Amino acid sequence: MRIGRLNHIGIATPDIEATRDTYAALYGADAATPVKDFPKLGVKVCFVSIENTELELLQPLGPDSPVNKFLEKNPKGGQHHMCFEVDDIIAARDAMRERGATVLGTGVPYIGAHGVPVIFVHPKDTHGVLVELMAKPEH
Amino acid sequence: MRIGRLNHIGIATPDIEATRDTYAALYGADAATPVKDFPKLGVKVCFVSIENTELELLQPLGPDSPVNKFLEKNPKGGQHHMCFEVDDIIAARDAMRERGATVLGTGVPYIGAHGVPVIFVHPKDTHGVLVELMAKPEH
Repeated sequence: MRIGRLNHIGIATPDIEATRDTYAALYGADAATPVKDFPKLGVKVCFVSIENTELELLQPLGPDSPVNKFLEKNPKGGQHHMCFEVDDIIAARDAMRERGATVLGTGVPYIGAHGVPVIFVHPKDTHGVLVELMAKPEH
Repeated sequence: MRIGRLNHIGIATPDIEATRDTYAALYGADAATPVKDFPKLGVKVCFVSIENTELELLQPLGPDSPVNKFLEKNPKGGQHHMCFEVDDIIAARDAMRERGATVLGTGVPYIGAHGVPVIFVHPKDTHGVLVELMAKPEH
């Protein structure tokens, strides 16, 4: 198992609209999707297009949001995870376990904000960086 | 001024060799440069190739390293900055200031680990994310 392209950088923020507007106004990165609520994932999400990848902006939705803890530690927001595409999400999940890493949750891939199955690898396995693996979406 | 491609994600680590080896062993990202010391920048650096971008691994070099403070807050390491390419680094610097952002240091672009001029924009201007802008390198 070998990771493919960086699909996106996940960025947590306490104010997703303000952050999206900042990337447009300050950096000219003005191609962004509307903000969408994902109640099951506990986040509001929008995507900012970059020439070769995307930024996934995340704002917590609800008290059980997986992003709440990160924002408690980083109240202004910050880089939350990196997401790489893989050819086969089940094979990737199995490879993570065989190689000694901890897959978060039940380990059953679930549908993420991109509409394809994902898993997350515990940051302790990647020297403090939370890594998402995503089945390759159709581009 | 509009940012171009994501050149790299900067990742701080207390042990650069171990982190490089982890990306190879766990994720199959085994194309990496040798670790190189940049005493003037206060960091040891190596680059891990990803299909569409790079990871820039950074370990502090010396007591005045700009990465020390980050590792005090995140002892295991973590995502430290995002770096985007720009066509004209001086125009980009001027645009940052005109748009109300704070360019770190003197504001005079200096040669980074890629051998081209760079500036850094204060994380307060990008909702907690440190952003590096880099003159487009020759690919």
